[in-house]
Parts: sequence; C-alpha cells; structure tokens
Amino acid sequence: MSVSSSSTNSSRTLKIGIVGFGPFGQFLAKTLIKQGHPIRATSRTDYSQLCVHLGITLFRDMDSFLESDNDVILLCTSILSLSEVVRAMPFHCLKRPTLFVDVLSVKEHPRDVLLQVLPEESDVLCTHPMFGPESGKDGWKDLTFVYDRVRIRDEATCSSFLHIFESEGCKMLQMSCEEHDKLAARSQFLTHTVGRILSEMEINSTSIDTKNFQKLVQLKESTVRDSFDLFSGLFIHNKFAKQELKNLELALDKVKQKLLERMNEELDLSVSNH
Amino acid sequence: MSVSSSSTNSSRTLKIGIVGFGPFGQFLAKTLIKQGHPIRATSRTDYSQLCVHLGITLFRDMDSFLESDNDVILLCTSILSLSEVVRAMPFHCLKRPTLFVDVLSVKEHPRDVLLQVLPEESDVLCTHPMFGPESGKDGWKDLTFVYDRVRIRDEATCSSFLHIFESEGCKMLQMSCEEHDKLAARSQFLTHTVGRILSEMEINSTSIDTKNFQKLVQLKESTVRDSFDLFSGLFIHNKFAKQELKNLELALDKVKQKLLERMNEELDLSVSNH
Repeated sequence: MSVSSSSTNSSRTLKIGIVGFGPFGQFLAKTLIKQGHPIRATSRTDYSQLCVHLGITLFRDMDSFLESDNDVILLCTSILSLSEVVRAMPFHCLKRPTLFVDVLSVKEHPRDVLLQVLPEESDVLCTHPMFGPESGKDGWKDLTFVYDRVRIRDEATCSSFLHIFESEGCKMLQMSCEEHDKLAARSQFLTHTVGRILSEMEINSTSIDTKNFQKLVQLKESTVRDSFDLFSGLFIHNKFAKQELKNLELALDKVKQKLLERMNEELDLSVSNH
Repeated sequence: MSVSSSSTNSSRTLKIGIVGFGPFGQFLAKTLIKQGHPIRATSRTDYSQLCVHLGITLFRDMDSFLESDNDVILLCTSILSLSEVVRAMPFHCLKRPTLFVDVLSVKEHPRDVLLQVLPEESDVLCTHPMFGPESGKDGWKDLTFVYDRVRIRDEATCSSFLHIFESEGCKMLQMSCEEHDKLAARSQFLTHTVGRILSEMEINSTSIDTKNFQKLVQLKESTVRDSFDLFSGLFIHNKFAKQELKNLELALDKVKQKLLERMNEELDLSVSNH
C-alpha cells in the first residue's frame, strides 16, 4: 500500500465509455465532462434525455458502444451484475487494446472476472473511489481513491486516467485488491451490517437520545439509502466479509456472556447480603 | 411525559448533601456551588483535598453526614452500589424529613429501592441528567434533564431543586420511571451494547475508512471510556434491557438470513447462466 502524489502531468484527453449509467456513473461523468473528456455511455435503463442534457453520446446496443473507439471503458455496474454484463460483451467489436476500469466497492471479484473474461490485450485497473454523490457533492478534495494496477501495459493511458482523480485533489492510495477487501470487510461491510441491524430493529429518535444514539440513528438512515443489492454485493463478493459477520456474532455473544456473568455475581452478592 | 418550562421562581438556597463523590457527583457539585448552594459530601473514597479546594464539607462517616441537616440528599453512587449504600444508611440520624434525589441512568430501580428503604416521611425525586462531564463541560443549556416526582409532599424544596437545572437552561422532561427505562433501553443501553461489541471486535481506523465507519470507531472509543459497571448497571437494573439485547440478536440473525438467501439466489443464477 502506498500513497502516491504522482508527479506525472499526464493530462491527455481520454475518450471514456461508461457501462452502467446509474447514479454513480452519472456522478463520475459530471467531473469527467468538466475536465473535457468526451464521454459515451451505455446502460440497460434509458437515460437518453439525461445524456442529451449532459452532452454524452448514448449507445443503446453494446456492439456500437464498443465500436465507438474508447481509450477507457469505465465499468459502473452494480457488484452483482458486473459478471453478467462483462460476459455478455461482444469484445470482437473493440477496435484496439483498451483500458478497462471498474469502480466497485469490492476489488478481488472484479479483478478475477476481468482477468478471466477480457481479451488478453486489454489493460485492467481496479479502483474504488471511496466517495459518492453525497460525500463528493462539493468536490473530491482529500477524498480517498484506492486503485490496483492489475494489468497495465499502456502506462500513458493508465496515468492519464489516474490523473483525473489526482487533479481533483483525491488522496491516491495504491493497494492490492486483497488488502482492500480485507480492510473494507472490517470497515465498510461491518458499518453497513450494523446499519442494517439497526434498521431491522426499527430504531428511531426518542425524546431522551444521547449524542451517540443519534449517530446510530443517522447511520441507520444513511445505510438504508443504499440498496440491499449493494449490501449483498459487499457480502457475497468479498471473501473476508463472512468472517467479519462471524466476528460480529461472536462479539455480541461475548458481550452478552459478560453481562450475564456480572448479573449472576450481583445476584449472589445480593443474596449473601440479605 | 411533558416538557415543563416551570414558571416557579423558586431560587431558595438549599443545603445539599452528596452521597458518592466520584466524577459525576463532582461534576454536579461545581454548578451547585456556582449557584450558591452549601454542599456537603460523603464518599467511600477520600476526596478531602478536593473538597477543601471546592469549599465542600466532607464527612467521612454517614452518621454525621445525615446529622448535618440537609434539605436535599443527592445520591450519586453507581447503579450497582445504590441499594447497598442506601440500605446501610442510619436514617435515625436525619433531623427532619428530607428530599432524596437520585441521578442514575436507570429509573425504576432507584425508585423501588428508595420507596422500600427510606423513611416514609422522606420525599423522593428520581432524575436522570442526560449529560455528564464531557457533554456538559461548556454549560447545561439545552441538555435534557429527565425527572419523575415519585413522592413529593414538600413542593417548595422539590421546586427549588428542579430550578437548579431549569435556571441552567436544561430541557426539563417530566416522565415516569417506567417510560424512561423503556426509551433508555432502546437508546442508551443499545448504544453502549453496540459500542462494547465493536470494542470486543477491536475495530480501529483504517486507511480506507468511510465517514460512517469513523463514527463507529468514535462510538467504540467513547463507550469504553465509561466503566463496565455502568454498562452492567444499564442491563441488570433496567427490566427492558434484556428484551433489547434479544431484539439485537434477532435483528443480526435476520440480516444474516437475508444475506444468505440473497447469496443462494445469486449462486442459482450463476449456475443457470453457465
């Protein structure tokens, strides 16, 4: 893992094709457009009006999208649909070696899928921008961008792509996909799990909230704004998540045991005092 | 439950005796002294130097403390020691009917102990200042003060005591002990439990923390600053806490089941696609 402040001034304009034009793809596109990169998109949902508005060329079929000669293909699908979407791509339509970049919140899974499915001459950069439409709405300065240069031969294109995030002031963090998933299972997945548990309990503000309880209510609310598909993806496609779920269960059990032991001690004490 | 803005201007000076002069008793004492109330204290730990410094009369034995003619006796023991401390008090030393006030984070337990053990002529006010040395360090304005007038005959003394908190700008919340405990089990106890679980898991900041994960790390750190005795007290002496612990276990189990179901659906899908 290393924090790079990259001295490459690779500000080459890149033709970027976005696959999956949902909220996260749109969010990234706005900054890419601002930086002057020509954007093309394809999505199962019809975003034609939005694309006209943003000046993006929208392709409704994947053949013509791949034929449109992109320097970078940015995969903005959900975790759960990545494999299906990539496996369905007609790669023979690609005109030349292309850099494929994913932005998922798990990293080993897209790495494995891309290495398995993409043409051998395609480069692979696995990334996780640790921000989104909410946290990144006032710019990306100091927000963390994790990446792993999984298979890079065309250094210039890869540098130019990374420069997009560097030039916005992101904290650039190079880290292996495995290391990312290990840390993310303990942080992001665990946080989502606690939020989902609190949502299952239907906690709500009371007239006697403590400050810390208010934080839990906020966590619950922010967790359920994300889809259950995202949460499932964090679990299913991060091999470290199952262990963290077990750790959470074990920790709850341990806390419960400690409470019961203390309660029994108190009972014994109270019996011996009367 | 009702929020009172009390129009009584009862700013009578009260002789207040504090039982248990730990951090919370000391914290309250500073504001009582600032308001001009003469303070006496008794504690198992020797705080004589601190008391000299604050201008507080310290009694090392309970007999002379009770004989010192207090208008109010403020019980600032821990939840777990309240019963033992109160049952050991030589009430025959009291010179006249006295208002007993507790400040514990559970309310039915002190209510029951005080009604059972105190002389019938003593008044009982059960309170929970929802703040402490940390949250109340810059004043008590808008901080919540919960109280239940459990057995009040001497209205003047009770009003004067409540006025201490009203005049500091506290949000005064009259609520039955039972209602308090019901809400607190879902807010304060649950929050402590989540904090203890995260502490048991030994979570720590990572290089790729999300904002919500940082909140959980802060929650963990703030929870373990409180004693395990406090946490045990919230559990053992709040009859609603056991159910909330069960609810937490059930919710975790439900979230796990949903994840496993979704994982099996994905596996089925993936098998049928290949």
